Amino acid sequence: MSKSSTITVREKPVERVASANAGGLTIYGETFVVETDQRVEVIDLTGRVMEFVRRFNISEGLVSLWSMHTTCTLFINEYQVALLADIKRFLEQMVARDAEYMHNDPKLSDCDRMNADSHLRAMLFGHNLTLQISGGEVVLGQWQRVLMAELDGPRARSLRVQIFGIS
Amino acid sequence: MSKSSTITVREKPVERVASANAGGLTIYGETFVVETDQRVEVIDLTGRVMEFVRRFNISEGLVSLWSMHTTCTLFINEYQVALLADIKRFLEQMVARDAEYMHNDPKLSDCDRMNADSHLRAMLFGHNLTLQISGGEVVLGQWQRVLMAELDGPRARSLRVQIFGIS
Amino acid sequence: MSKSSTITVREKPVERVASANAGGLTIYGETFVVETDQRVEVIDLTGRVMEFVRRFNISEGLVSLWSMHTTCTLFINEYQVALLADIKRFLEQMVARDAEYMHNDPKLSDCDRMNADSHLRAMLFGHNLTLQISGGEVVLGQWQRVLMAELDGPRARSLRVQIFGIS
Repeated sequence: MSKSSTITVREKPVERVASANAGGLTIYGETFVVETDQRVEVIDLTGRVMEFVRRFNISEGLVSLWSMHTTCTLFINEYQVALLADIKRFLEQMVARDAEYMHNDPKLSDCDRMNADSHLRAMLFGHNLTLQISGGEVVLGQWQRVLMAELDGPRARSLRVQIFGIS
Repeated sequence: MSKSSTITVREKPVERVASANAGGLTIYGETFVVETDQRVEVIDLTGRVMEFVRRFNISEGLVSLWSMHTTCTLFINEYQVALLADIKRFLEQMVARDAEYMHNDPKLSDCDRMNADSHLRAMLFGHNLTLQISGGEVVLGQWQRVLMAELDGPRARSLRVQIFGIS
Repeated sequence: MSKSSTITVREKPVERVASANAGGLTIYGETFVVETDQRVEVIDLTGRVMEFVRRFNISEGLVSLWSMHTTCTLFINEYQVALLADIKRFLEQMVARDAEYMHNDPKLSDCDRMNADSHLRAMLFGHNLTLQISGGEVVLGQWQRVLMAELDGPRARSLRVQIFGIS
């Protein structure tokens, strides 16, 4: 039984910036980095995503936000200090940091981060969001914020944003 | 520490209907409202989404469904009365209505809905679905239904649907 | 109270292969089948999805992966034998196989698979992924694998993949 994880290898790494245009359709993508400070931390990316969309002259379309990591996730919720504390406590209750996990056992796993809890918690959130663009802006409700959950920080996290639409 | 939640403000509100066409690609979006009757309730939106897609002459493409709320979610499951009861009980077990939450404490939160459970439950489902269109219809398996979970009703809920494809 | 589940019926079944082209945009979709061996099993689809995308001359775009079933799901995580064992144990803890469920009660349900646990577990993962394509390949981080969770096997499972982009 292998102790290693499978590595994903593209023929070429993802370019930091890439675009294509055809028949009135524009696709534009870029990678950006978010530095986190804590092991578990929720960061509000809404302003950044809204600015990204406004930079392009896309009136109708989609914007995809993708975390390049397994233990860093993306989701929608309200952003309030009290609620964030509830979310952290909920994660600890659902998936204990210190339970016995095979992924954390050096006899079974070559991962030295001891982060099985992070992997399990990540499954509850998901790693990407595909949002609508309309009228040149992201479609979001009044209380909806685009949030990133760092689940095994602190680290530098790469996210990729891709816009897809018609001017 | 602020007791308030961050508000999301677009420069202009989302138009009820919006569309764009270029080079054979059509994008069309609109907002619709679903009235709910209970605090926790699952509503089957499949017929509505299928009709929406059939209204347009799009043979291949995508359709995005987006809840404009934090405590109203979208997911895929079978639609059966017995299973819906199991889902409600599961939610109550996973995230108790009456546990102690900071979001429900007036000293820490200016939210008067006492709905921390709704916010935590919503994270388990997610707020949007991006479905495929093929042959002019939504791609769904025989038992798959497009479901909305009201998690803090009864309320009027706004959903946005956007179609994206080639005739 | 009906014991049956609602069935989803398209006017025509999904074609195994379908495509459209307009103004430089290509959409191409096809269905493929994955055979599973166990009741609960995680299968790595990354190689298959990467090959699918490379077959087309799409430089920038999206690829949607859709499970045609309610109890077969799609998600991102690391692929390591030890972690997969942790995931299975986590699912059993979160949603017990043998608890009392209305969906498993012949007096209330005409489903003879006794698979309420599968339906509840599926809600935690979700049934689709919408990935980015850039530089002619799927955008994935080094440890990210595209995984399918069979939650009520063994069975033959149909998945649909749809590519959407510019050459």
